[in-house]
Amino acid sequence: MNIPAISVFGVRIEGEFFKGDNVADRILAACADVGVDLRDDDVVVVTHKIVSKAEGRLAEMPEGDWEVRDAVITREGATFLRRNGPIAITRTRHGFVCASAGIDASNVEPGKVTLLPLDPDRSARSIRSRLKRVTEADVAVIICDTFGRAWRNGQTNVAIGVAGMLPTINYRDRTDSFGTLLKVTNIAIADELAGTAEMVMGKALGVPVAVIRGAPITRGRGTAKELVRPAHEDLFL
Amino acid sequence: MNIPAISVFGVRIEGEFFKGDNVADRILAACADVGVDLRDDDVVVVTHKIVSKAEGRLAEMPEGDWEVRDAVITREGATFLRRNGPIAITRTRHGFVCASAGIDASNVEPGKVTLLPLDPDRSARSIRSRLKRVTEADVAVIICDTFGRAWRNGQTNVAIGVAGMLPTINYRDRTDSFGTLLKVTNIAIADELAGTAEMVMGKALGVPVAVIRGAPITRGRGTAKELVRPAHEDLFL
Repeated sequence: MNIPAISVFGVRIEGEFFKGDNVADRILAACADVGVDLRDDDVVVVTHKIVSKAEGRLAEMPEGDWEVRDAVITREGATFLRRNGPIAITRTRHGFVCASAGIDASNVEPGKVTLLPLDPDRSARSIRSRLKRVTEADVAVIICDTFGRAWRNGQTNVAIGVAGMLPTINYRDRTDSFGTLLKVTNIAIADELAGTAEMVMGKALGVPVAVIRGAPITRGRGTAKELVRPAHEDLFL
Repeated sequence: MNIPAISVFGVRIEGEFFKGDNVADRILAACADVGVDLRDDDVVVVTHKIVSKAEGRLAEMPEGDWEVRDAVITREGATFLRRNGPIAITRTRHGFVCASAGIDASNVEPGKVTLLPLDPDRSARSIRSRLKRVTEADVAVIICDTFGRAWRNGQTNVAIGVAGMLPTINYRDRTDSFGTLLKVTNIAIADELAGTAEMVMGKALGVPVAVIRGAPITRGRGTAKELVRPAHEDLFL
């Protein structure tokens, strides 16, 4: 048969994003350019960078000025968890643990940084709503960013905004091939989808969007907030 | 054009795995059954469960007997980092941080658990070597397991063994679309590939292997050990 269970398409978008741009319309134009027709149950993964730019979430920060950076982090409402030289590991207002509250100097004009969207779940819902209205395809949308992790080298893409799907798949009520109940398995599929998308995005390639077809998502009103472990349940904060 | 950049194939394998089974040969037979022909640069992702069984890495553990479990964890050479009720977060001899040293009662006969392979990188090299010899396809191999994370709900698949590729992609020397050097971006692509594979494996589906085609891997003698952040560099141990 040799038909892939899952297919991943990269969607290149030419040109910069500015405050007020309609991200969904830019995605649709780019999908048309590369010949990707959105279908029901496709997952459209969008790097937060273009969303942040379209939402005007930028700040001034001279390169390497850690004092200004720390001021921006504080203004963003994030708390500092750990410091190591210039590295500041923070917990954002959304509850995400990442370096520098997610502020990022890459792929933005020198002297500026992007901030995370104020409410990435809302941004995802808004993009999904527009994509669905125009194409009539009932897609899901994930907004992603690249975070480091505890204990493991390297960063991976994770979901910071979700719309149109549940962020996890719960195997708790299912039995395995021996009939044993799978008690603790709750897969963060939104993060796995974000990681999958990263591979076609690269970091310097002008591909801010990926369309993933065939993933076993569960449709519903999920959010990325559900991926945030509450502080009082976390053993490593 | 509409040609996916990345394609993911699930490879179902019928029947149980026993000590001494040749995992690579079972994978090849199953690939033939489902019509997946391995090609150069394909990434073959293998759940550690079948590797552990083939390597005889099993232990007796009555269900819910945490004393026995803790004894097994200690015998495995893992250290305890945190406890919360029956949950034990450990650091394995390999350096992986995960629950219960990776011992797992799912998809194994009742009363037994699987242990992690002693040297998953070596297991990956051995599978890769056999796959390559038989098919002449220069594939990479990843052995994966499902781990929880700090700060985020839900588990994801990560790489615990790697062969034939580098586990990370380093963007440090590249410039972004504004010419800014990407200083800290080092993507753990082996973990993203493991997460991608999880989506076609499921937990109860009898699909222990995924073949991923089109991923931007860098060929080389990489290991999953490189994904382990040394304890003295970790801010959250």
